Amino acid sequence: MAPTPTWVKQLKPSGPQGSELLAAERAKSNVPVEKLQELLFTKQVIERKKKVLDVLKSEKIFDKSQNYFAGRTDRFETALARAKKLRNLRVEHNWSLDEYRVASELISEPGPYGLHDSMFLITLNEQGTQEQRDEFLSKANDYKIIGCYAQTELGHGSNVRGLETTATWNPEDKTFVIHSPYLTASKWWIGSLGRTANYAVVMAQLVVNGKSYGPHPFVVQIRDLRSHEPLENVHVGDIGPKFGYNTMDNGFLLFNKVKVPHISMLARFSRVDPETNEYVRQGSPSLIYGTLTWVRSTIVMQAGSVLARGVTIATRYCAIRRQFQDRDAASGSAESQVLDYTMVQIRLLPLLAATFALHFTGKSMMNLYQESQKKMNASSTSSDSGNRGAGPEETRSGSDILADLHATSCGLKALSSTIAAEGLEVCRRACGGHGYSSFSGIGPWYADYLPTTTWEGDNYMLTQQVARYLLKSARSVLKGDAPSNDTTSILSTFRSRSEIGCAFDIIGSDGDLVSAFAWRASFLTFEALKHRDEQGKAWNDLLVDFYRLSKAHSQYMVVKNFYSALQSPETRSGVDSSTFDVLHDLFRLYALHTLEQEGSEFYASGACSKHQISLARTNTVMKLLQAIRPHAVRLVDAWGFDDWVLDSSLGRIDGKVYEDMFYRASELNPLNKITVDPYPDSEVLFRKVEDSVVKSKL
Amino acid sequence: MAPTPTWVKQLKPSGPQGSELLAAERAKSNVPVEKLQELLFTKQVIERKKKVLDVLKSEKIFDKSQNYFAGRTDRFETALARAKKLRNLRVEHNWSLDEYRVASELISEPGPYGLHDSMFLITLNEQGTQEQRDEFLSKANDYKIIGCYAQTELGHGSNVRGLETTATWNPEDKTFVIHSPYLTASKWWIGSLGRTANYAVVMAQLVVNGKSYGPHPFVVQIRDLRSHEPLENVHVGDIGPKFGYNTMDNGFLLFNKVKVPHISMLARFSRVDPETNEYVRQGSPSLIYGTLTWVRSTIVMQAGSVLARGVTIATRYCAIRRQFQDRDAASGSAESQVLDYTMVQIRLLPLLAATFALHFTGKSMMNLYQESQKKMNASSTSSDSGNRGAGPEETRSGSDILADLHATSCGLKALSSTIAAEGLEVCRRACGGHGYSSFSGIGPWYADYLPTTTWEGDNYMLTQQVARYLLKSARSVLKGDAPSNDTTSILSTFRSRSEIGCAFDIIGSDGDLVSAFAWRASFLTFEALKHRDEQGKAWNDLLVDFYRLSKAHSQYMVVKNFYSALQSPETRSGVDSSTFDVLHDLFRLYALHTLEQEGSEFYASGACSKHQISLARTNTVMKLLQAIRPHAVRLVDAWGFDDWVLDSSLGRIDGKVYEDMFYRASELNPLNKITVDPYPDSEVLFRKVEDSVVKSKL
Repeated sequence: MAPTPTWVKQLKPSGPQGSELLAAERAKSNVPVEKLQELLFTKQVIERKKKVLDVLKSEKIFDKSQNYFAGRTDRFETALARAKKLRNLRVEHNWSLDEYRVASELISEPGPYGLHDSMFLITLNEQGTQEQRDEFLSKANDYKIIGCYAQTELGHGSNVRGLETTATWNPEDKTFVIHSPYLTASKWWIGSLGRTANYAVVMAQLVVNGKSYGPHPFVVQIRDLRSHEPLENVHVGDIGPKFGYNTMDNGFLLFNKVKVPHISMLARFSRVDPETNEYVRQGSPSLIYGTLTWVRSTIVMQAGSVLARGVTIATRYCAIRRQFQDRDAASGSAESQVLDYTMVQIRLLPLLAATFALHFTGKSMMNLYQESQKKMNASSTSSDSGNRGAGPEETRSGSDILADLHATSCGLKALSSTIAAEGLEVCRRACGGHGYSSFSGIGPWYADYLPTTTWEGDNYMLTQQVARYLLKSARSVLKGDAPSNDTTSILSTFRSRSEIGCAFDIIGSDGDLVSAFAWRASFLTFEALKHRDEQGKAWNDLLVDFYRLSKAHSQYMVVKNFYSALQSPETRSGVDSSTFDVLHDLFRLYALHTLEQEGSEFYASGACSKHQISLARTNTVMKLLQAIRPHAVRLVDAWGFDDWVLDSSLGRIDGKVYEDMFYRASELNPLNKITVDPYPDSEVLFRKVEDSVVKSKL
Repeated sequence: MAPTPTWVKQLKPSGPQGSELLAAERAKSNVPVEKLQELLFTKQVIERKKKVLDVLKSEKIFDKSQNYFAGRTDRFETALARAKKLRNLRVEHNWSLDEYRVASELISEPGPYGLHDSMFLITLNEQGTQEQRDEFLSKANDYKIIGCYAQTELGHGSNVRGLETTATWNPEDKTFVIHSPYLTASKWWIGSLGRTANYAVVMAQLVVNGKSYGPHPFVVQIRDLRSHEPLENVHVGDIGPKFGYNTMDNGFLLFNKVKVPHISMLARFSRVDPETNEYVRQGSPSLIYGTLTWVRSTIVMQAGSVLARGVTIATRYCAIRRQFQDRDAASGSAESQVLDYTMVQIRLLPLLAATFALHFTGKSMMNLYQESQKKMNASSTSSDSGNRGAGPEETRSGSDILADLHATSCGLKALSSTIAAEGLEVCRRACGGHGYSSFSGIGPWYADYLPTTTWEGDNYMLTQQVARYLLKSARSVLKGDAPSNDTTSILSTFRSRSEIGCAFDIIGSDGDLVSAFAWRASFLTFEALKHRDEQGKAWNDLLVDFYRLSKAHSQYMVVKNFYSALQSPETRSGVDSSTFDVLHDLFRLYALHTLEQEGSEFYASGACSKHQISLARTNTVMKLLQAIRPHAVRLVDAWGFDDWVLDSSLGRIDGKVYEDMFYRASELNPLNKITVDPYPDSEVLFRKVEDSVVKSKL
């Protein structure tokens, strides 16, 4: 590639410059960026992030400049090297688990140690006995063995009970035989398995004395600890390229009657007694379900900031991109900033509002989880010690909380990851043609995030769990034996007013707006109950209704949580009153825009009138867009993404959008190192001029 | 990579096998696949496709097995080699332009000759004089020069008038100076420019005597014809990786006062007189707008089959994938096919219906285009020859047709490409986890298709053109001087009934169903007119309304065209009555599902009642899903995609889904050729065991 000529280097974008435009945006608004950022994250978390970021930036291995260009193999190799470095930095700087997680988030790519660091360690810890923790966990903590969590198979994902891999107890020599009877039994999609792991927690159907006891976890070595070659009768590898997530080596794994010792079966909650050869259950695995709930809560928590990256990039770029004059403006006026077009605002600003809505919802979800864990632990401790002091009331309240939390986390996981994933694509398109370039930074991020809509419960499947819970709650409300929680409370209110209806002032009153969401969710619950219990409709015929119901209930939760966050002392004391007004506008925009999108359901439920919905759309939402518009850039600034993290030409904090696009294309792009022969009749297809390229083709 | 062990090779998926399941699906339905395929495409087109496909399959260079694995540079190089081969095959087999296009479609990847073959040749032909065609077009036709079409710039896309590249006429030496005054003037996104082209048609602001005359096309050489190095004062290269379309070398291009001769400005419609140094307009460039309309019509035409690829893959896979038992089924029953879940049906089957709806709409659009071209040519011939015989009536009718066609093509381009792009993503997700694998074939296809929503008019921008046309039509209806066409006819009908309202039997009558779509579009048109003309709202404040209006009108067009296609003699005589009933169900599903999705607008317009919308959803649509379900596999079979074309494990016609996934992962995947050292404390980061890989890293 010839060096960039001097005349090119001297070129500037036509004015006004991106930096000037962003400066003007920031001058228009008084939103205190730092204060707001502290409200979102706390000072302590912001400082921790900065400290870790400084370390990462100083290490060459984390340099991102070739990320968008590298092919699959290079990306994986680099990601593994980074994972190793990160582990070593953790030791060197004595980072806590939280700091280690912050570092991973800042690097922003799935790494090959990902499943070792999470599910492998967690499962050993939670489901292993002390003996097993001594045997496996300590080595795993020291990275003497590297593991993964092998549950999903080629033929079975969501339906864990249908797994085909077997673990058969052999009474003669006190071993288990791990076996894959079919091709579809092959473990599939297993993160960190393809090239990296030498151990796996394998979920397999336990068979004892010819009887199957369902899926259980086994710790199985799969590769030699020195040569890293697969062990005999183990077939393992990477499953190939994906839409995203290509820095991760998702793998496959087949066993041909592989013997493992008795200690391999993780035995905290159930085991095979080697003396009697009997299957024995012990203790309650409810803490494991707790972990799943925790994972889903984390997804809710992260959805806000996942989406905020896209919104930050698109908002900044749309403040810089100018295209066409306003049709009603005098001829000769300058081109408008794209962010001034209402058609762009209506796509971006409700998503900006959603980032805050999801963030506050996630925070409240985590609080709820921690509270419930405390209660559960208290009750399980007392029940472990012979049920002393824990009356039936308290036990019941513990399991009620768990059921409520489980359903809430399912519904919110589905809703929030769908909003984040689809919102990112909206942000990408709002960037016009340049959104399609990898340098936008949105596409690769979106592609990596997409699996979140499928894993930890497919977003469609999960809605059935929410519906089941809501139906159950409605039945208990009808019977009069409902536990007291928010869900039964809104259902009871709806029920008590079903004869007289409601009259919500959705535009004039925030409280009424939240209540309208509760009303619609309750209406749909009792409708579904009628279909199922009175009309005896088939479950399968109600799945679409259940999906809508789950969405309605989760949207209510988000609106309620955003509203509560506004009322909280932290918010009231954390920002000045004009910033509070902006947050309040964001709340109303999120709620009213959602209400308008789901207009026909709100109307059908009687929660509001046709006129109100039409007013919300043509009047209130449009006014809120106008009110929020001047603060848009400062509001995304408050999310505090460093340029190094965003890795986006379009989202640069200094507005040097075009300079950065050009630099990456012209100076970094390896395709520009080859010169081709363009003619169809040439004898050789290509003529390469750069040695480096010629060499790689040898 | 170690060879696959024998025990692995002997494994089969657990039964029933995919092949058995698809056979059972095909046995359930009598839809005559071949007949239906002929109705869609005609026998002649099907045979032509088969002939071309056989040639492609026999050429090694078109082998697709490494497509999903290769990195950017390899993919581009292979694509260029394929483009050359394709050109040579065209000569060898004496393929027509249509056959050449069919071949490109079958290969299904953007190729580096793409813009040479289309916009470069078309522009030279349509906008060049005879002298210019002799000079440039003949060489271009012979691939002695390879060109592209350089319009979009880093700073300007949709707003062509805002382009910054200048072409200044120099009276002294009768040349133009092509110049890029700013970095944002850099041509950007130009297909085939990055590495391949040595010529470009450059759109630049023509400046004569200090006065600017707007953008004009110039033919400019940019690379040396032998060395292929950029000419002096030309800076050109590839713009880097994108979300998709990575086989194409989209490029950038900057000029530093490059002189080109007088002949460079394409002069059919305007030129600079070299004697007087005056700018001269000649003839009417309306045919050029015709080309844009043609390009948009092609997009509408293709949207159906673009989407059908995704629907084919997802439908076949969902007939094979089994997950969970039906909740109401006896315990111990087999797992259900995913396609039996209503939540999957509601996502896939309306898209299956959409493939037919879009296909018939595209066909009718192309017919309309050809008719209009005939009329335009007739009227332009007579007007060229002194307006003989062409009265004002006929001329006006010509421009009316053009205006109608322009608006229709804008609206339908936006709607159909949005349906296709977003539908593909729905198909991908309907495949669950495996949809995320590149081997699904949907992700890469979706990513390559996405730019269609932006180019040839951004889908959001285009809706303004539709709205403007509808407002104009409504004004002429009110004034009583409306030309007679379908748009003014539905507006007049609405207007004449505005006092008495309507009563459409949307569920009982097809005609009424179509009329309900016309009613809603007309309602929104007059609402928008009221906002603009009576209330004097700003254009910018109405963009969201305009977007909805355009969508409503285009949805009406699609429903109307699907309905007309069902009524046509070809359809009536082309298929037996039970197949006709299936097509009729598809029509109703498409129309009623769309109506339900847009329920609040239909309701607000008075086109139907709340009760009707609720019936459509809970009753009619669910019944239609049930009725269409047994025919789903045969209906996608009728689209006639060869496995070679789909390149999808999940969409295989023989149902060997899991075998193919496994084969590609285990045998083809190059990542499995490397063995890594997994430990964080290892001195070397990686240890490679295969020579081939070691070499490529030298």
